[in-house]
Amino acid sequence: MSITKPSIPKGTRDFSPAEMSRRNYMFDIIKDVFRTHGFLPLETPAMENLSTLLGKYGDEGDKLLFRILNSGDFTRGLDTADLGDPAAMAPKISEKGLRYDLTVPFARYVVQHRNDNIFPFRRYQIQPVWRADRPQKGRYREFYQCDVDIVGSRSLLNEVELVQITDKVFARLGISVTVKLNNRKILAGIAESIGHADRMTDITVAIDKIDKIGMEAVCEELSGRGISGEAIDLLKPILQLEGDNHAKLNRLRESIGKSETGLEGIAEMEKLLGYCSALGLDGNLEVDLSLARGLNYYTGTIFEVKANDYQIGSICGGGRYDDLTGIFGMPDTPGVGISFGADRIYDVMNGLGLFPEEATVTTRVLFLNFGPAEEAAAMKELASVRQAGIPSEIYPDSAKIKKQMDYANKRSVPYVVIIGSDELASGTAVVKDMRSGEQQTVPLGTVAGAVSK
Amino acid sequence: MSITKPSIPKGTRDFSPAEMSRRNYMFDIIKDVFRTHGFLPLETPAMENLSTLLGKYGDEGDKLLFRILNSGDFTRGLDTADLGDPAAMAPKISEKGLRYDLTVPFARYVVQHRNDNIFPFRRYQIQPVWRADRPQKGRYREFYQCDVDIVGSRSLLNEVELVQITDKVFARLGISVTVKLNNRKILAGIAESIGHADRMTDITVAIDKIDKIGMEAVCEELSGRGISGEAIDLLKPILQLEGDNHAKLNRLRESIGKSETGLEGIAEMEKLLGYCSALGLDGNLEVDLSLARGLNYYTGTIFEVKANDYQIGSICGGGRYDDLTGIFGMPDTPGVGISFGADRIYDVMNGLGLFPEEATVTTRVLFLNFGPAEEAAAMKELASVRQAGIPSEIYPDSAKIKKQMDYANKRSVPYVVIIGSDELASGTAVVKDMRSGEQQTVPLGTVAGAVSK
Repeated sequence: MSITKPSIPKGTRDFSPAEMSRRNYMFDIIKDVFRTHGFLPLETPAMENLSTLLGKYGDEGDKLLFRILNSGDFTRGLDTADLGDPAAMAPKISEKGLRYDLTVPFARYVVQHRNDNIFPFRRYQIQPVWRADRPQKGRYREFYQCDVDIVGSRSLLNEVELVQITDKVFARLGISVTVKLNNRKILAGIAESIGHADRMTDITVAIDKIDKIGMEAVCEELSGRGISGEAIDLLKPILQLEGDNHAKLNRLRESIGKSETGLEGIAEMEKLLGYCSALGLDGNLEVDLSLARGLNYYTGTIFEVKANDYQIGSICGGGRYDDLTGIFGMPDTPGVGISFGADRIYDVMNGLGLFPEEATVTTRVLFLNFGPAEEAAAMKELASVRQAGIPSEIYPDSAKIKKQMDYANKRSVPYVVIIGSDELASGTAVVKDMRSGEQQTVPLGTVAGAVSK
Repeated sequence: MSITKPSIPKGTRDFSPAEMSRRNYMFDIIKDVFRTHGFLPLETPAMENLSTLLGKYGDEGDKLLFRILNSGDFTRGLDTADLGDPAAMAPKISEKGLRYDLTVPFARYVVQHRNDNIFPFRRYQIQPVWRADRPQKGRYREFYQCDVDIVGSRSLLNEVELVQITDKVFARLGISVTVKLNNRKILAGIAESIGHADRMTDITVAIDKIDKIGMEAVCEELSGRGISGEAIDLLKPILQLEGDNHAKLNRLRESIGKSETGLEGIAEMEKLLGYCSALGLDGNLEVDLSLARGLNYYTGTIFEVKANDYQIGSICGGGRYDDLTGIFGMPDTPGVGISFGADRIYDVMNGLGLFPEEATVTTRVLFLNFGPAEEAAAMKELASVRQAGIPSEIYPDSAKIKKQMDYANKRSVPYVVIIGSDELASGTAVVKDMRSGEQQTVPLGTVAGAVSK
């Protein structure tokens, strides 16, 4: 075996115990909210057949798939013409790829298990995905997605649920957010009203960039895409409508009232806002007519969540779609879903210091080790502390006390328990609070109580 | 986009909500025991550099690695000589592979982060691994490992901890087990005592198979490997020693007492058993001198756990090693660890019906939907049920009641709540227990209490 200088592939990460503890704190809250809302856990394999993945994410997406080399003699079937041509060679030597997102595997699952699923089907899925993107700050080649979807129902109550979930997750994580809402039918109504009903994709792709490049640059882009000057003049004031949500929708109705689709979108939005208001959820909802979201498959409500006190892209987003599973030959599976961006949410929480102490403390109690007789008594006491569900351990060797205390300090253990020869003789233990420096002597058998206050 | 008949790669699995709920029940117990024992969570990337993985699992293991095709023009550097030669081509077009186990990535982590780790380092890691093995019943190409290790300490207390963890995990899962123990030093002592100190690997590889092929076949194999008939005659009675653990060790001392290493192994075993006995853990411990475990890197205590009431291979195993990280240029990192076989444990629990009802019930309460006015009242009541942490949902459409009740039955929801027009008028809700058929009328605002009994 050769000596290897160890490293990991570009764009991937190890998660140390300290990071994992914080990540688990975050994921546990997200999962708990999903579960109390009746969502069911689902997991799919890391590898999918390339036939499942290819063509689902556009040409750019196809290039970003991580492909897995076939096992055995994968060179069979290759000829010299393939040598300089990766596009010709790849399909001959690779039939599987790593999951690129959770939506396509979910669609594949719904179709493959269509006879077992109970609709409406409410599922959540928290798993890593892989993309061969150029790594950069905040962009990784392996990252987690947290998706929650309800399929098989067109009811707007599902949208209300997703707003509730969003509100509850971020409230429990301590992140102040704005939930931006729009509706693809409103965007279609706008396109229709400015005389470009057939150009909705061009229009939404352009206005999606307002946040990044500003209104003027978007207008230039629209113009470059062949949208007429008159249309742009009609569009600008709509995208800049001011006032509260209801005022915006009322003025919008004046502008796009001739579009039936547009009116439908406005009615859906009003119904959604009404429900949210009745449930006390309207405080952080903002109708944003410039919100477009890139993905073409959205057909109704679209969502995007921004952190109010931290500069970062959207931390959660999603929307309603009419046809999740058509790509796999099963039409008419409507649904609505959102995806929480775990890495960005983690960055926000870290940046704002929102992780509580319990998310960083891992072991609560360390028993020092004074040699065979004392260690035997300590092991018994330790067992009862663990029985009480308190994370705790004993230093495994009777090393110098300074070394053991150093370990306790580096690990940020809040309590150290001392059972030396004196304590052993008197049937007691000394419990030291490492934060205050205070210490108390308690009878053996009662340490669990002393450290759980 | 073409229409694709959906399927997943051979040897991989989807985990449905019902399976996930049971798997989560199992993993949650395992993690909780790890945490109360002061172990810290760690995660490493799914992809490792091939230089990290190759040569660590033997020639057979190298062949079973899933390799990832390089991005971009991976054909650069190929020439016609590579065409029929996968062994020559593979390293030119693939630099990364999928994790094959959790031990090598852990060793890589310990070395790569050697300045940040605090020793003794106690970590657990629960992640999938991938092997391009031929799929068959119970053998998958993607499966989870649950590893727990303590590195940087030679203390036998660590072995005691692992026995405690094993005992607690299986007790809480409800699986009756036998924990088989042996020690590589004892095996070395045996090899020495029968005059073949230099043939320990051959001897252990052969006796490891006693369970599968029986003593006679093992003796034949030993003979085939050049072990003398006299040596085999000395070995047989040792492997067949009867009696309780202490009796076995005492008789063993008579047989191998001239080997210093052997005596050391016996002393370690006696110390371990003594500790376990003092902690009330000796009930299911069995010294098994035929236990060898395949991996060559074990150097002291070795463990293997068998389910008592279900026919399946070992469900947990591990041991002590002297040198985890030498392969990465950092010698002298001793440690001890065990790995829980999640898939087999799941099969045992399923086979014996050990999953409790709460591991299969996902949503506890379904609110029926009777239309706009009633649904608004139901949403409010639902919010307070969820506030109490009870997984619950509302049927999203005011479909026919039969359809809604069918959904409740198929999902095995224990409680259905009815807020129809009569209930709305009187400010009440009807709570129906789906298992007993009983129903009660309660005031709005109190449903959470009625369904949490």
